Amino acid sequence: MIPIVSIVGKSDSGKTTLIEKLVPELTRRGYRIATVKHDIHGFEVDKEGKDSWRHKQAGAYAVVISSPNKVALIRDVEKDLTLEEIREKLIRDVDLILSEGYKKDVQPKIEIFRKEKHKELLCTREDNLVAIVSNKTFDIEGVPCFSLDDIKGLAGFVEKRFLASKREKGEVSLKVDGKVIPLTPFVSDFLMKTIKGMLASLKGCDTPQRVEIFIEEPPSSSSLEGRGSRSG
Amino acid sequence: MIPIVSIVGKSDSGKTTLIEKLVPELTRRGYRIATVKHDIHGFEVDKEGKDSWRHKQAGAYAVVISSPNKVALIRDVEKDLTLEEIREKLIRDVDLILSEGYKKDVQPKIEIFRKEKHKELLCTREDNLVAIVSNKTFDIEGVPCFSLDDIKGLAGFVEKRFLASKREKGEVSLKVDGKVIPLTPFVSDFLMKTIKGMLASLKGCDTPQRVEIFIEEPPSSSSLEGRGSRSG
Repeated sequence: MIPIVSIVGKSDSGKTTLIEKLVPELTRRGYRIATVKHDIHGFEVDKEGKDSWRHKQAGAYAVVISSPNKVALIRDVEKDLTLEEIREKLIRDVDLILSEGYKKDVQPKIEIFRKEKHKELLCTREDNLVAIVSNKTFDIEGVPCFSLDDIKGLAGFVEKRFLASKREKGEVSLKVDGKVIPLTPFVSDFLMKTIKGMLASLKGCDTPQRVEIFIEEPPSSSSLEGRGSRSG
Repeated sequence: MIPIVSIVGKSDSGKTTLIEKLVPELTRRGYRIATVKHDIHGFEVDKEGKDSWRHKQAGAYAVVISSPNKVALIRDVEKDLTLEEIREKLIRDVDLILSEGYKKDVQPKIEIFRKEKHKELLCTREDNLVAIVSNKTFDIEGVPCFSLDDIKGLAGFVEKRFLASKREKGEVSLKVDGKVIPLTPFVSDFLMKTIKGMLASLKGCDTPQRVEIFIEEPPSSSSLEGRGSRSG
């Protein structure tokens, strides 16, 4: 599971600037970072009249534009996605997800605070506040405070808290019908060993680093009917 | 595995227009469609100076912009992705992927051809041509030909050939270290039943429709070093 950390703070506290400094520092340390930004006003990622825009207008649920150095995906959603949903539906191949904002989400938060701009912090430990970046010193137990220019210190904290553990132990995640099923260490270990044992005799599976299995059952006749009704 | 079909044709044959007609017809039949368009000139999906643009400039590998009705993901790639790579890295939650173009890719192709514009077809059966849409009749064994306005006929063909089977039988797909491992029906059935058996006693897993398992091994010390060197 890719860890998620939110950079939060009141308006004009410098969230984007902090992300602009933190991303290169973490990248330099060998991690791939994805960032997430909420845009309440919507956005225009594609130009009217372009082929991909025409695909979307025609009702495509998702549109991909691919080029030799970057790809873009635009897709419909029925509601604002949580950070966990964004991770599940969209993000692959990165080590850490940094969101700008998302203070109401449940994910761990780092708050940036400037004493000349605001009086009080936006978040408390109950909001899953894990660190503060500020020109004022806060004394909250278990919540370290970094100065505004201590990007290396902050990156070190993020690395130790959210990235290092993945390097030490393996990981099993299980989703059933789109929901993450929590696993005890015993079940996790049991699944990992049993599945690796089953796969060991398949060609190309002798020393797997990463295994992904996807099982889809045929829909029952009742769900097929449900499906049919979707077409109106 | 989400099926992929490419709409190909020489320039000015009407590929985008065909997709504009086919997508709503398939959507009406209850399927979710993703489209893929290659853009050799690159594209600008985000505006200079916007927060998400600044994240990308700072070196984020992927950037997500989320709004209440759509989300966009922009990510780096090292080279042009194949359609299979696009499916693996980007696309979730759809029933069919339709690409515009991609005639050199290995995926099944539907060619649109207008006799007043060109003399010869772009593709042959060796290119995995599965159907033709044209105002000229071609007699190629196993490759049905639809008239330019027979969108229902074409949609029916796509549905029968690429979408119906999924509704009848279950599916197991296995990826190891990012590569798809082909499975015989026996192995597929064995994996499906064994894994479902193991999960049956977990809470929330009694009648799973869709199971996703992700196993990640801790990197060995040598790959950690490799990783370290990535940070320069």
